[in-house]
Amino acid sequence: MRVIRQVGEHSFAFNRYLEPIGTVKPGEKIVLYTEDCFKGLVQSEQDLPEQVLSNAGHLNPQTGPLYIEGAEPGDTLKVYIHGIEPTRDWAVSCIQKPLGGLTPNKFTRMLNDPIGEKTWIYRFDDKGMLTHDEHLSFPWEPFLGTIATAGDLEVISALTPYEQGGNMDAPETKPGNIVYLPVAVEGAYFFTGDVHANQGQGELCGVALEISAKVTLEFDLIKGKSIKWPRIESPDELMVVGSARPMEDAARIAYAELIDWMTEYGWDRLDAYQALTQAGKLYCANMVDTVYSMVAKVSKKLAYRK
Amino acid sequence: MRVIRQVGEHSFAFNRYLEPIGTVKPGEKIVLYTEDCFKGLVQSEQDLPEQVLSNAGHLNPQTGPLYIEGAEPGDTLKVYIHGIEPTRDWAVSCIQKPLGGLTPNKFTRMLNDPIGEKTWIYRFDDKGMLTHDEHLSFPWEPFLGTIATAGDLEVISALTPYEQGGNMDAPETKPGNIVYLPVAVEGAYFFTGDVHANQGQGELCGVALEISAKVTLEFDLIKGKSIKWPRIESPDELMVVGSARPMEDAARIAYAELIDWMTEYGWDRLDAYQALTQAGKLYCANMVDTVYSMVAKVSKKLAYRK
Amino acid sequence: MRVIRQVGEHSFAFNRYLEPIGTVKPGEKIVLYTEDCFKGLVQSEQDLPEQVLSNAGHLNPQTGPLYIEGAEPGDTLKVYIHGIEPTRDWAVSCIQKPLGGLTPNKFTRMLNDPIGEKTWIYRFDDKGMLTHDEHLSFPWEPFLGTIATAGDLEVISALTPYEQGGNMDAPETKPGNIVYLPVAVEGAYFFTGDVHANQGQGELCGVALEISAKVTLEFDLIKGKSIKWPRIESPDELMVVGSARPMEDAARIAYAELIDWMTEYGWDRLDAYQALTQAGKLYCANMVDTVYSMVAKVSKKLAYRK
Amino acid sequence: MRVIRQVGEHSFAFNRYLEPIGTVKPGEKIVLYTEDCFKGLVQSEQDLPEQVLSNAGHLNPQTGPLYIEGAEPGDTLKVYIHGIEPTRDWAVSCIQKPLGGLTPNKFTRMLNDPIGEKTWIYRFDDKGMLTHDEHLSFPWEPFLGTIATAGDLEVISALTPYEQGGNMDAPETKPGNIVYLPVAVEGAYFFTGDVHANQGQGELCGVALEISAKVTLEFDLIKGKSIKWPRIESPDELMVVGSARPMEDAARIAYAELIDWMTEYGWDRLDAYQALTQAGKLYCANMVDTVYSMVAKVSKKLAYRK
Repeated sequence: MRVIRQVGEHSFAFNRYLEPIGTVKPGEKIVLYTEDCFKGLVQSEQDLPEQVLSNAGHLNPQTGPLYIEGAEPGDTLKVYIHGIEPTRDWAVSCIQKPLGGLTPNKFTRMLNDPIGEKTWIYRFDDKGMLTHDEHLSFPWEPFLGTIATAGDLEVISALTPYEQGGNMDAPETKPGNIVYLPVAVEGAYFFTGDVHANQGQGELCGVALEISAKVTLEFDLIKGKSIKWPRIESPDELMVVGSARPMEDAARIAYAELIDWMTEYGWDRLDAYQALTQAGKLYCANMVDTVYSMVAKVSKKLAYRK
Repeated sequence: MRVIRQVGEHSFAFNRYLEPIGTVKPGEKIVLYTEDCFKGLVQSEQDLPEQVLSNAGHLNPQTGPLYIEGAEPGDTLKVYIHGIEPTRDWAVSCIQKPLGGLTPNKFTRMLNDPIGEKTWIYRFDDKGMLTHDEHLSFPWEPFLGTIATAGDLEVISALTPYEQGGNMDAPETKPGNIVYLPVAVEGAYFFTGDVHANQGQGELCGVALEISAKVTLEFDLIKGKSIKWPRIESPDELMVVGSARPMEDAARIAYAELIDWMTEYGWDRLDAYQALTQAGKLYCANMVDTVYSMVAKVSKKLAYRK
Repeated sequence: MRVIRQVGEHSFAFNRYLEPIGTVKPGEKIVLYTEDCFKGLVQSEQDLPEQVLSNAGHLNPQTGPLYIEGAEPGDTLKVYIHGIEPTRDWAVSCIQKPLGGLTPNKFTRMLNDPIGEKTWIYRFDDKGMLTHDEHLSFPWEPFLGTIATAGDLEVISALTPYEQGGNMDAPETKPGNIVYLPVAVEGAYFFTGDVHANQGQGELCGVALEISAKVTLEFDLIKGKSIKWPRIESPDELMVVGSARPMEDAARIAYAELIDWMTEYGWDRLDAYQALTQAGKLYCANMVDTVYSMVAKVSKKLAYRK
Repeated sequence: MRVIRQVGEHSFAFNRYLEPIGTVKPGEKIVLYTEDCFKGLVQSEQDLPEQVLSNAGHLNPQTGPLYIEGAEPGDTLKVYIHGIEPTRDWAVSCIQKPLGGLTPNKFTRMLNDPIGEKTWIYRFDDKGMLTHDEHLSFPWEPFLGTIATAGDLEVISALTPYEQGGNMDAPETKPGNIVYLPVAVEGAYFFTGDVHANQGQGELCGVALEISAKVTLEFDLIKGKSIKWPRIESPDELMVVGSARPMEDAARIAYAELIDWMTEYGWDRLDAYQALTQAGKLYCANMVDTVYSMVAKVSKKLAYRK
C-alpha cells in the first residue's frame, strides 16, 4: 500500500490554499500517519498543558491535504476507514485551562478562574487496554477525531467541526465505517488527524485518549451528488453529524438531514419524521469544541424500505 | 397486589395541593392505571389533533398523587419499575400543531406557519409489534414518559421535565430499572403517566407511541439523602437526567450530577471528570418538551471502584 | 386612595389558589406595599447572603393576589403604574452564591466553585442618589421587578418570568407606563413586588438595587382580547417582553409578538418585519433569572400607521 | 485625502493571505469605497434575491485588506470613523430565503419551507430620509456593518462576526466613534464594508438598508496592548461587542470583557460587576448572522473613576 507522508508542516486548519501532499485516485488504498492533538508535546504527568503548550502555537495538527482525483464541487467524497493502528504505546489526556465541558472558556465566559490542570498518561497493558491505574483503564477503540474536506472560501481551524466534517469528535468515524463529506473545491482537499484511542460521548473534559497513529483509507466519489452535512454509514446504521451552538441547533440539523437522506430511499418527509420519532438515536459527540456535534442515527433495516 | 385507582380527575400538573389517591408503604408493590397523553381522544387517523383536542383543555393526565409513607423533604424516593402492560391493543402518534422538534412552536417562534398535522394509529400485530404498515412497525419497549414527585412551592405542568422528574421522556424509565427522585414535601406526592409503547431518542415530532397502561411499581426511601436531579439505575449503568434549555445546559447538569454520584463511590472529582470523558454516554431523551432532557450514563463496572 | 395591605404571608409564587387580599374594580387607583426580594433580611454589608438567607426559605415575596372584578380568561389586564415611592432610605445589592450572569449556577452547571459573596448597601444622599461610595452611586429610577397574573394550571415561582409577566426585571415596568398582561383565570389574580431602585440591562450579578416600596396602580380590562406575552406601552413606544432560554428564543418571541401587535394597526406581517429590521430596538432585561427576558420595542410614531 | 481604491476583486472573507490594496500609516486619514452586501445586484423590487443572487457566488464584498504600518500581533488597532457618505441615491432591503431572525435557516433547521421573498427599494427623499412609502421611511444613520482585522490562522467569511470584528452589524460602528480591534498578524490586514444606511437592533430580517458608500477612516496603534474582543468608544460610552451562539454566550462575553476594560481604570472586578448590574446597557446588534452579536455598554462618567 502506498504511504503518503506529510510534506513540510502539518496544517492547523482545513485549508484549500495549501499544496497537496499527494494525489489519490478513487479506489486506491493509502496509508497516512497522524500526530496527536498536542503535537506530541505532552508526554508525562508532570507536563501541565499551560506550561508545555504556552509557546506551542496552534494545536491539532492535520495530515493533508490530499488531492482526490476527479473530485469537483457538488460531488460527495466517500471515505472508507480501513484501519487505525497506534504508532506509540501510550495515550494522553488532560484537563487544560480553559478547555472543557464543565468549565468556563472563551465562548462560555464567567468570572470564575478555570479549574486546575492535570495530565493522565495511559499505557497499553498486556491485555491491550490503555491503562492509567486500576480504575482508569479503557479499551482500544480508535477513531479519527478530525476528518474533513476544505471549504471553498473559508480556512477553518482544525479545532472546529463544520458542514464539511472537521473536528467532530464522533466515535463513529472508525474502522469499518464510511464517512461521506461534501466536496467544495476541485480535488476535495482532504485532511485527517486527531486520532483518539477511545472517547466517551461528549468528550467531556475536552481531551480524549490522544495518540499518534497509522491510518488506512480509501476514497470514492459520488459524482454530481451534493450533501449538506457529513454522513456516516456503519454496517447497520445511517448517521448524520450536525455541528452548531446551541446544541439543539446541532440536533435539529442532524435529524433534518437524516430525514433528507431517508427520502432518497423513498420515504415521505412526514413519515420519515414519524419513523425517527419512534426509532431514531441521538447522541452527543462533543460538547467542548468551538461548536457542538450531535449524531442522529437510524437503522438501515428501518431506513431501507423494501 | 393492591390496585390504586385514580379518584376523581387526573391531574395535569405535579401538584402537592391535591388529595392523595392512596397511601403506600415502602416495600409494597402496587398497581396503577395510566391514561394516554391525549386522554384517549385521538382514536383514528381521521382525528387531527387540532380538531379533536381544541376544546380538550390540558393534556398529559397523570395518575396520582400517591402519598409515600415516611417520605420527608431531603429524602430520596426510590421507584422500582416492575412492569408496564398495555390496556388496549393500539397506540397513537401524530404531528400536532405546533409541537415538534423540527417546527416552530411557542418557545421557538418563527414567522412560518406550522407544518400540517397527521395521525398514525399502530396496532399490535401477531408478532407483538406495534404496526402501522410494513415500514412503520416497532417493538413493544414501554416506559413511563412522566414520573415525578411534587415540588414544595411550584405546581408544574405535566408537560415539563424538571429536577424532580416530570415529563423527561427518557426511555430508561422502564421495567427493570430504578428511578431515584428528590423528595420536597412530606409524603413525596408521586405521579406517573404518559406511557410510551416505544420512542426514539429525542421524541422528534413530540408524540411517541402513546398508549394507556397498567403499571406495577414499588417504592423505597433513602432517608436523609438528598439528590438534586433524577437518577436512574439499570442492572449495568448509572444515569442522571438533566433538563434545561439550551440543550448544553441539560448536558452539563447531567454530567455534573453524574460526577457527584461517582464521588459517592470514592471518586475524586477530577478523576471522575476524566473517566466520563473517556467512557461516558450522553444521549438526548427529548428535544420537544418545554425544556430538553439529556441522559448521561456510566457503566457500574467503571463507577463502582473496587 | 384605598390602601390594600398584605393579609397573612406574602406568596413566593404566582398562585391562583390563594385567597385574594382584596378586590379591585377597573378604574380605581389603589396603593400596595411591597417587600424587597430578600424579605428585608440583608441589612448591612456584614450580611453575606449565604449566611443570612440559608434558613430563610423562598425569596422574592409578592404582594397579592388582587382579584380584578370582571376579569375572565381570554381578557387582557391593563395595569397603569402611577407611582413607586421608597418606604426606607436604603437599598441593597449583593453577589449571592450561586446566582449571577457570570457565574455557574443551578441551570448553568460547571465544576467551578461559585465566586465569593459581597454585599453593598446604598443610601439616599442629599441629591436623591442611591450612593454606596463616590463611584457606586445611581439615581432613583424605580420599577416593578415582578408583575404578573396567575396561570390557570401552574403555580410559578416568583423568581421566574413567563408569558403572564412574572420576574421579568424589565426597567420599563415603571411609573408612567402601562403593562398589559394575559388573564388566564377569573379575577386575574394579580401580583407585584421586587421593586428595584435602579437596574442596568441584564441585571448582571442577579441583584439590582433592592428596596421596599409603596406602589400606586390602576387597572383596566380589555374584554375578549387575548394576548400571548406581556406588552408594555410608554408614552412613545410599544414593547413586548419575551422570556425563554436560550436568549435568542426570548428575542424571537419578543419580536414575533411585536409584529403581531403591529398588525393590529394595519401592518402587513412582512412589512412589519421589514419595519422592525430598520427601526426596532432589542435589549436584554435579565440574563440571570430562571429564564432570560428580552424587550423588543418600536416607536409609536412608526407603529401607528396613519 | 488619499483615496485607496480596491485593486482587483473584493474579498468575501477576512483573509490575511491576500495582497494589500494599500499601506497606511497611523495618523493618516484615508478614503475607501465600499460596495453593498449584494454587490449591487438587487436593484429593483422585481429582483427577488433567490433569482438574482442564485449564481452570484459569495456575498458581502469587503474593501481591503489595508496593511497598517507598524502593526504587530498583540497590538490593538484603533480605527477612527470620520465619515460615511452614500455613493448612490437608494438603499435596498429584502427578505431572502432562508435568511432572517424569524425563519428557519442553515443553522436553525426546521421542516418548514422558508417564508416568501420580498424586496424593498428606498430612495432619499427631499428631507434626506430613505423612503419606500409613507410608513417605511428612515433617517440616514449610517454605520459599517463589517469592520475587521484578519486572523492569523483562519480565513473567516465576511458574513461572520468574531473576536476581531467582522460582520457585527453593530450600529455603534458609526461616524464619531472609535473601534478597537485586536491585531493578529503583521500589518493587521484591515477590511471594511457592508454599509447600512440605517438598521434596527437585531437586524431582524437579516438585511438592513444596504448601500454603497464612501468611508473616511484614520488608524492608530496601541503597541503591546492586547484585547480579546472588539471595543467601541463613543464620546460618552465604552462598549464591547461579543459574538457567539447561544445569544447568552455573546452577552456574557460582552459584559465580561467590559469588566476587564473597567479594571484598566482602577475598578476591582467585583465592584465593576456590581456597577454594570446597576447601570450597564446590553442590546442585540444582530440575531441573524452565523453567530449573534451583543453590545454591552457603560457610560464613561461611571467607568472613568476619578
